[in-house]
Amino acid sequence: MIHFHVTAQAREGSARCGVLHTPRGPVHTPAFMPVGTQGTVKGGDAGRMQETGAQMILANTYHLALRPGEETVAALGGLHEFSGWSGPILTDSGGFQVFSLADRITVTEEGVEFRSHIDGASVHISPERSIAIQERLGSDLIMAFDHVVALPNQASVIEEATWRSVRWAARCQRVAGRSDQMLLAIVQGGLDASLRRRCARELAAMGFSGYAVGGLSVGETPAEMYAALDAVTPELPADRPRYLMGVGRPQDILAAISRGIDLFDCVMPTRNGRNALVFTDAGPLRLRNAVHERDRRPVEQQCPCPGCRHSRGYLRHLFQAGEMLGPILASIHNITYYQRLIAGAREAIAGDCFAEFYREKLRGWGVDPQADRNAAPGSGRARSV
Amino acid sequence: MIHFHVTAQAREGSARCGVLHTPRGPVHTPAFMPVGTQGTVKGGDAGRMQETGAQMILANTYHLALRPGEETVAALGGLHEFSGWSGPILTDSGGFQVFSLADRITVTEEGVEFRSHIDGASVHISPERSIAIQERLGSDLIMAFDHVVALPNQASVIEEATWRSVRWAARCQRVAGRSDQMLLAIVQGGLDASLRRRCARELAAMGFSGYAVGGLSVGETPAEMYAALDAVTPELPADRPRYLMGVGRPQDILAAISRGIDLFDCVMPTRNGRNALVFTDAGPLRLRNAVHERDRRPVEQQCPCPGCRHSRGYLRHLFQAGEMLGPILASIHNITYYQRLIAGAREAIAGDCFAEFYREKLRGWGVDPQADRNAAPGSGRARSV
Repeated sequence: MIHFHVTAQAREGSARCGVLHTPRGPVHTPAFMPVGTQGTVKGGDAGRMQETGAQMILANTYHLALRPGEETVAALGGLHEFSGWSGPILTDSGGFQVFSLADRITVTEEGVEFRSHIDGASVHISPERSIAIQERLGSDLIMAFDHVVALPNQASVIEEATWRSVRWAARCQRVAGRSDQMLLAIVQGGLDASLRRRCARELAAMGFSGYAVGGLSVGETPAEMYAALDAVTPELPADRPRYLMGVGRPQDILAAISRGIDLFDCVMPTRNGRNALVFTDAGPLRLRNAVHERDRRPVEQQCPCPGCRHSRGYLRHLFQAGEMLGPILASIHNITYYQRLIAGAREAIAGDCFAEFYREKLRGWGVDPQADRNAAPGSGRARSV
Repeated sequence: MIHFHVTAQAREGSARCGVLHTPRGPVHTPAFMPVGTQGTVKGGDAGRMQETGAQMILANTYHLALRPGEETVAALGGLHEFSGWSGPILTDSGGFQVFSLADRITVTEEGVEFRSHIDGASVHISPERSIAIQERLGSDLIMAFDHVVALPNQASVIEEATWRSVRWAARCQRVAGRSDQMLLAIVQGGLDASLRRRCARELAAMGFSGYAVGGLSVGETPAEMYAALDAVTPELPADRPRYLMGVGRPQDILAAISRGIDLFDCVMPTRNGRNALVFTDAGPLRLRNAVHERDRRPVEQQCPCPGCRHSRGYLRHLFQAGEMLGPILASIHNITYYQRLIAGAREAIAGDCFAEFYREKLRGWGVDPQADRNAAPGSGRARSV
């Protein structure tokens, strides 16, 4: 039922536009999903999220299974009715928590035993269980359960986790039974281009409806991440959506779009917003800085978000005074910024001027692409914890 | 420029409707002001506040003078542009902080020396200084600087503070110079009916445009508070607005309306909302309770607020998971609840059925008015800290 088609392709590079048709409406790609780990995007309700231009949001299998539990979500009408978000929802599989909660897990071929980060209770997630939870939650796009490891790491550890992820993807494919859900496989392989390529080929041969690139933004430099993408995307079927998980900074998103990525999610807009950092076309602003104290200008003149109906001075005051409206407005602004950025990218691709768009954005942000590729690892990190 | 007139008067009791005409629009009374101590009502931005039905909001002189400073507010266009709230704003004078920050002050006849609750710096507020700050902030209704003391207290302490408040009100009246602002005097007098009456008469003779009843909801029972109101309101000129400061619980508001009060403010809707308590016509709900876990009903079926687009189960989940959307939605619901309650009261007064309205609300809440009058002191407390 859910299907994808490419609608435009840049002449230079691999950037492309597409539409993901879902029963809950179309998603025009490239698209950015705000992260709503626990069934709410931090900073606003579903109505506010829609106003940002977001088309699809992300929620998390592990977190929702623990609290309130997928049976409770189902009893409350499923994830859409639960969260109030009537558009498409993608759920991550819990695989990322194998990385982010690494000190609380035991991995076997069968699956993963977590000691709950909430109350220490033992929670088992296997490929089959992850799919069962996601079917119960009722999300539209669901993810295969994968084994994510930190980078850098021993080659043997990465290789083992990669092939385990492939075997687990096959188990997910075998049990995924809802025709109204699209299952995406996740390519692993660390920073080893050959391993990434082989993993992508293997999964491509299995005929998934969509593919993700996972295990990135977990401790590598942007250059390393881009190199991994360069290895993977050519191996993925061109007619299926490609999703780069948990990435990232605005420049990472444009770099990945130019490499043929269609879908993104990241906590950066909300996490940074809560910490008083807002994104603009002239680079980020730290709202706590004294320079903003009496500045009557909005964060961005042309931004339609509710935060930009206020002055920088007022936003600074909210953060200084510890008022919750500061995090709310800065988060909404940042999500709106990401949506406007990616809508601009779509338009540029369709108008065949993506390369210019990309260069102009980097110039505005003051980012030297060469220097930036070697930026500190993890600065763009961000699948949810 | 700002003027008030009574538009309806209940046949039984002293409840009345009126309109406060301000350059920023009319305020239909009885009216409830959400509290935005630091220039933001906790829970939402100005747009969301307007959707609740709020007509006027309250901000605080002491808090804004300390942070960001009235000069900064003025540089950012004044309180309305600063906060984004384009309707009328009332500023409290700082007098309540003489009570709430009692361990940080020195009172003399000249004024009050505060040690800032933020950085310990010495801050002087006198009647003249309070008016000067409020003129700089640019609020529409401004309050005389008064001396609020805790209850119970020694008779001599209360008496001294009461007459000092009268002398300070005269000093405020002398210096208040903006024709677009309405200055309200504040009746003090603790629980001493005779002192309250004398204070009210004295202030009434001074010809203020509006009157407030202050120094209540600071440690007395509802019965004591109502008795103080019974003493005061008959002494106040019927053609001037009457404002009961910092009160209170829904039943306190109806009790005060029946005694002729026109204006209210209270942190109860927002403070309780942040703590997962929501008001309904069937009494308050504690959203953390397990009973709500799988309840698909909204908090109130007929409520138009954004919180009531969600199930009780979802709201409970938000609080359990520590998500900021819980406090946001519960606060907005509670403010909306208060606005709907007071709009219902206006309608009932205009339709001459306030007594029935009042009885029906108490029945719905399960409140026995006799028993409630002796409720624990301070349960309805709430000018801002």
